[in-house]
Amino acid sequence: MSTIAVDAMGGDSAPEEVVKGAILAKNQGVDVILSGDENLISTYLGSEQIPIVNYPQVISMDDDPAKAIRTNKNSSILGALNLLKEKKADAVFSAGSTGASLIGAISVLGKIKGVTRPTIATVLPAQDREVILVDSGANLEVKPKILYQFAVMGSKLSELLFEIDNPRIGLVNNGEESSKGRELEKSTYKLLNSSELNFIGNVEGKDFANSKVDVFVTDGFTGNVVLKTMEGVARLQMNMISDSLKENLLKPLLTPVKNAMSPVRDALNPNSTNGSYLLGVNGLVIIGHGSSNAEAIKNALLFTKRAIDKKFINKFSKVSNEL
Amino acid sequence: MSTIAVDAMGGDSAPEEVVKGAILAKNQGVDVILSGDENLISTYLGSEQIPIVNYPQVISMDDDPAKAIRTNKNSSILGALNLLKEKKADAVFSAGSTGASLIGAISVLGKIKGVTRPTIATVLPAQDREVILVDSGANLEVKPKILYQFAVMGSKLSELLFEIDNPRIGLVNNGEESSKGRELEKSTYKLLNSSELNFIGNVEGKDFANSKVDVFVTDGFTGNVVLKTMEGVARLQMNMISDSLKENLLKPLLTPVKNAMSPVRDALNPNSTNGSYLLGVNGLVIIGHGSSNAEAIKNALLFTKRAIDKKFINKFSKVSNEL
Repeated sequence: MSTIAVDAMGGDSAPEEVVKGAILAKNQGVDVILSGDENLISTYLGSEQIPIVNYPQVISMDDDPAKAIRTNKNSSILGALNLLKEKKADAVFSAGSTGASLIGAISVLGKIKGVTRPTIATVLPAQDREVILVDSGANLEVKPKILYQFAVMGSKLSELLFEIDNPRIGLVNNGEESSKGRELEKSTYKLLNSSELNFIGNVEGKDFANSKVDVFVTDGFTGNVVLKTMEGVARLQMNMISDSLKENLLKPLLTPVKNAMSPVRDALNPNSTNGSYLLGVNGLVIIGHGSSNAEAIKNALLFTKRAIDKKFINKFSKVSNEL
Repeated sequence: MSTIAVDAMGGDSAPEEVVKGAILAKNQGVDVILSGDENLISTYLGSEQIPIVNYPQVISMDDDPAKAIRTNKNSSILGALNLLKEKKADAVFSAGSTGASLIGAISVLGKIKGVTRPTIATVLPAQDREVILVDSGANLEVKPKILYQFAVMGSKLSELLFEIDNPRIGLVNNGEESSKGRELEKSTYKLLNSSELNFIGNVEGKDFANSKVDVFVTDGFTGNVVLKTMEGVARLQMNMISDSLKENLLKPLLTPVKNAMSPVRDALNPNSTNGSYLLGVNGLVIIGHGSSNAEAIKNALLFTKRAIDKKFINKFSKVSNEL
């Protein structure tokens, strides 16, 4: 039986939406423990039976993560991480402050040997199969050696999740030529090019539409902007298509066409479907989006359950040998 | 009569596609002069009559722009810029090396008084009306004061092009809170917040789907990645929609639906439609995409013609007073 420790106070609509999402997930066979304010959680649980550990302190998006983790020992994220540390859970899920999850995980679980900075990897849809974007928001400013480590961790994740031998690695840049980029990309290019990784070279945002690489490597600032641009552009285009169809198509056709497109509607919205992997700490931690509603929380918990079932996290720690 | 000086040797498929595009534009009433290798251009012109100035040297995407401009006095981009400088043309268009256009324009036309770094502004489709992204690739690494100047120039462009009073300015960041971002964004936020600009605050990639701001301000690295991600995601989503429609819709409906969506097909591909404005130099310079084919060149020249007709470039130089 696999169990997820859920940070019940993390997220814009926590604890209500998180608790509701946990109930939905439980009804689909996911075993969860809720970490947070026991009284509040009980209110939203009603007659549902889900174990609670009482860690009532809340770390908000505005708090300085390092300080908040240091001074809030009873924060919900630390409660969830403790459950994982004590082997009472197999994974942690949080839709709260990414920085707090990151620093909390380093503090409670420890970093994998050799990892300088843990990172966040997001699985994205692409043309032929899913791809990984790393870092997608954990480390805004990095050095070439850190980006190199992100590439190694992204490669390992791709190998383990998708059973790809020698995943193809691309460095996100403003052009394909090796001379392109800031000092960061120029130096990282050289590091990657002389490494054991299957480094394909520089890639651009337009390469999300083809299957040139399996792992897109970039700093957390660029990665975060890329993810959110993806979301914004997909929604904008959907709205434009909807307007264009209304204008140019016979009315009776609109509903069947809308239905036929619906599988795509949210596919490129990382908010609505996926969780992201916190890589480089000793344990499985999945990060969800702050704006998650109950349905998104449920999906993220199902995603976390699948991540546990893949049993990749112990194998992932062998990334130490490749750093 | 407005005349465009065209860098005939600039672009991945130059001079052939550029010359063909110039012929298409001429046939739609655009007055052009071609700068480049006279013999080569003549071959592609055939019996068409378009004036040529003989500047046969080519600066490629791989060349170091500063060095190339210094050592290739007969390069096609310098020929085009000279025509503008000598008032034999009203604008320059180039699909060649952006760096060479930038440095060439600074060298031949000079910077507008007070401008530290000229920038590239791209007009993008958005929910209600077009928006401006600045910098979209000219300056990869910048300081807060430079980003502030980009914001001032973007605001002025928005005001003049779209007749918006007090355009709303947003700083592209990894979150909305004022504490978000790298040191660059944190310092720039303060500068913008205490300025005369109509600064709305931080914006994210998802805001491309709404109409929260008129001008998105960022460094050239991030801006370039955003533009290309936009292109890649739009294409990826279109492909996904196409697959989903094929799977879920009755076959006879496919063609009318495809036709009804066609106005949107390339709307979010900056390559296929727009040119970008080189801002901060004394004269109107429009940058096209290197991958432009004849049709894209024609569209970019029509775009350049409209930019001339708007007669905004002299008014734009008054941006000096606001820097």
